[in-house]
Amino acid sequence: MNKIGKYEFIAEPFHCDFSGRMFLGHLGNQMLNAADFHSTDRGFGMKYLMTIKRSWVLSRLAIEMEEMPAQYDHFTIETWVESAMKIFTSRNFCVSDGQGKVYGYGRSIWAMIDTETRQPSDIYAIDNGAINDWIVDDKPCPIEKGGRVKMSGNDELVRSLDVNYNDIDINGHVNSVKYIEHVLDLWDIAWYREHRLKRFEIAYVAEAHQGDKMGFYREQIADNEYCVRLTKTDLLLQKETEVCRCRLVF
Amino acid sequence: MNKIGKYEFIAEPFHCDFSGRMFLGHLGNQMLNAADFHSTDRGFGMKYLMTIKRSWVLSRLAIEMEEMPAQYDHFTIETWVESAMKIFTSRNFCVSDGQGKVYGYGRSIWAMIDTETRQPSDIYAIDNGAINDWIVDDKPCPIEKGGRVKMSGNDELVRSLDVNYNDIDINGHVNSVKYIEHVLDLWDIAWYREHRLKRFEIAYVAEAHQGDKMGFYREQIADNEYCVRLTKTDLLLQKETEVCRCRLVF
Repeated sequence: MNKIGKYEFIAEPFHCDFSGRMFLGHLGNQMLNAADFHSTDRGFGMKYLMTIKRSWVLSRLAIEMEEMPAQYDHFTIETWVESAMKIFTSRNFCVSDGQGKVYGYGRSIWAMIDTETRQPSDIYAIDNGAINDWIVDDKPCPIEKGGRVKMSGNDELVRSLDVNYNDIDINGHVNSVKYIEHVLDLWDIAWYREHRLKRFEIAYVAEAHQGDKMGFYREQIADNEYCVRLTKTDLLLQKETEVCRCRLVF
Repeated sequence: MNKIGKYEFIAEPFHCDFSGRMFLGHLGNQMLNAADFHSTDRGFGMKYLMTIKRSWVLSRLAIEMEEMPAQYDHFTIETWVESAMKIFTSRNFCVSDGQGKVYGYGRSIWAMIDTETRQPSDIYAIDNGAINDWIVDDKPCPIEKGGRVKMSGNDELVRSLDVNYNDIDINGHVNSVKYIEHVLDLWDIAWYREHRLKRFEIAYVAEAHQGDKMGFYREQIADNEYCVRLTKTDLLLQKETEVCRCRLVF
């Protein structure tokens, strides 16, 4: 089996925004699907991991697009594991039209955890270090790695939202892609008419659950560059903690 | 070409709720995709209609499910036109596993409009009444038609939401499925743990846009049966008008 997985998708009409280009959230979701297909086909997918009480947890995701697929476009997502350390793997994505035109790239970092203790778990303990058989270190992914999202502390609370039924996935907490959608919703259509999102990165810190209130703190850090810090406040304990941080470059 | 269209889907992991069953919104979206594929393949799809300044507008949708597809389930949506009148067509759906097990059914009513005047337009004027070639009046769809959603006026405002970037599709107004998701979000996970949604129906009245505030008015009309009236308030004019009405049976 090829080390690089290649999956075909279509930009569904209702997964496209007012301009007829795919929403970043839906593209992100297809990247996560591609990651799931790739790892499942190669013996280290979520379904298998559940049987041994392990799971992948998305730790970072960075997406940088030259162009977004348009309504009804067929597109291809290639994905591969670039490297693996004790508890982290780095997985990359290339989004193209399958004929040589590249729309953009993605980079992600995944941690393996023990689903009982919620503690990090050694990836190399799975199937005698089988992950090594799948590492591709010579395929380029010419976008910057997602780093720490640094903020100055001059961020402002711009929105508060309750966690709702549709936010929560089978893991029982807010779905990774839903945070992206809520953050992109901080800008309105008038803004998106004038600005194209070039790069989005998100670093996940903790998980928000039903009953939490999410706070969105935004700071402009350069021309057309913003950071958003997302917090959750447990409505019973009234304790506010950080959930994730994002950086957006328009 | 067969009068009935048949399309294959998969219940993607992140399109499933906390219980591992597909979100109704995502299933509704796949029904709309099936409708789009079916009409496109038969010469009366949105893309062709755009060229003659016509469009389909979803007027009503009712979905009744015995069971929702579970994570990774492959499922099939069959769709066909049951009848056509001057400006309306009635399109049905059957969701099954493709092997004889039926998950549930859908019924929808679509109006044809002139995209310049936004007025109703005669379906039979398209290609000399070609719609008649596609009518299937002998395939059963054993669920109640969606009727008027009657409310007593004892409804209560239970939530207000701004229309956001991710709500708006290429038509420039809130996507039909987004209303469904927002309405389902009026109940929390604790409710969904104890109650299965059996039937959802929605009648669309008007379109909400960026800058509108949506109001959700809820009324319980029977045991485990609720109606929701959704309004929009234009933030400049402060005028509140009805957008759609839903009926939910748990």
